Amino acid sequence: MQITSEALERAVEQLAKLPGTGRKSARRIAMYLLKQNKEAVFELADALKELKTSVIRCSQCGTVSDTDPCRICGSPKRSAHQICVVEEFQDVYFIEKTNEFRGRYHVLGGVISPMENIGPDNIRIKELIERVGESGEEIREVILALNPDAEGEATAYYIHKLLKPFDVEVTRIAYGIPMGSDLEYIDEATLSRAFASRNAI
Amino acid sequence: MQITSEALERAVEQLAKLPGTGRKSARRIAMYLLKQNKEAVFELADALKELKTSVIRCSQCGTVSDTDPCRICGSPKRSAHQICVVEEFQDVYFIEKTNEFRGRYHVLGGVISPMENIGPDNIRIKELIERVGESGEEIREVILALNPDAEGEATAYYIHKLLKPFDVEVTRIAYGIPMGSDLEYIDEATLSRAFASRNAI
Repeated sequence: MQITSEALERAVEQLAKLPGTGRKSARRIAMYLLKQNKEAVFELADALKELKTSVIRCSQCGTVSDTDPCRICGSPKRSAHQICVVEEFQDVYFIEKTNEFRGRYHVLGGVISPMENIGPDNIRIKELIERVGESGEEIREVILALNPDAEGEATAYYIHKLLKPFDVEVTRIAYGIPMGSDLEYIDEATLSRAFASRNAI
Repeated sequence: MQITSEALERAVEQLAKLPGTGRKSARRIAMYLLKQNKEAVFELADALKELKTSVIRCSQCGTVSDTDPCRICGSPKRSAHQICVVEEFQDVYFIEKTNEFRGRYHVLGGVISPMENIGPDNIRIKELIERVGESGEEIREVILALNPDAEGEATAYYIHKLLKPFDVEVTRIAYGIPMGSDLEYIDEATLSRAFASRNAI
């Protein structure tokens, strides 16, 4: 076959690297962009460049931000008594969406995983311990909101141990049956956990 | 909820405009890009900009190209006796992929559609007729490869009528049962057409 535009093929090549985008969707997107006006395409391209030029990490909590400290760490409306520990910066977004938590965050940037050669020193655990230690007694609760898998459990256990010397309550978000689901479709591990963590009503 | 990075939200906003990309996938893509190195993201952004800066239309056939005439129109290996008429530039790519056609193309840039206020003058029909007329008798066959819908049929009929005065054969790609399909799942219109267009074997 004859390729008529190398530039088009290059765009398809680049778009096909995005997650969830195969070569067919990449081509559909490139052809769609070709039909848009120049301003619209440049706006998209510039927004993507801005991701790498203006988005930084908050030096306190480690989440993505345009400012340092981030708007959550810098806000007087957010409680300094509670720190929610998450694995990745996107978890901050997912938790914020619930409007449930009014404290601050701490992004670990991963979890302990001997399989992937990630030890406690490779993620921001030391920073968390320092943050708790340096806060005096301002930080009263550390909520662990890690993924319920082996690595998340191990990391939670490790952090819990390191926080023992401090006068801080360590809690973990509840694992159990997701809302709106059907017992029939819940795996056994989740169901067992839901039983073990049952609450008085 | 508290947004920590406006730049991230802008990128999500822009990505969500792409076809086949909802807000959730847009966010997943933006978060993926945040984790990539700067070079990779800039390469993508620049490839998208290039789409609008270096991709032009071939003045002969109207397809997307980096050069004018395009590589197909400019190639001595491609027959000048056959012109395949398609609706959009992407159809050139799909036909090229078959490696079946060795002639040249003519991209209409649409089909006649009174519903959408697209008349014969809004698409490149005049250019096709001129191309056939000016070619002397070099163009011997015009193959209509339009989509098999009402607009495609009407456009094919209209072009056929305009080409009557010229000594050129007008053909149309076969409509029928797609390869590998099952008669059970073929709609009646396609099946009727397949019967009407049956060939001796």
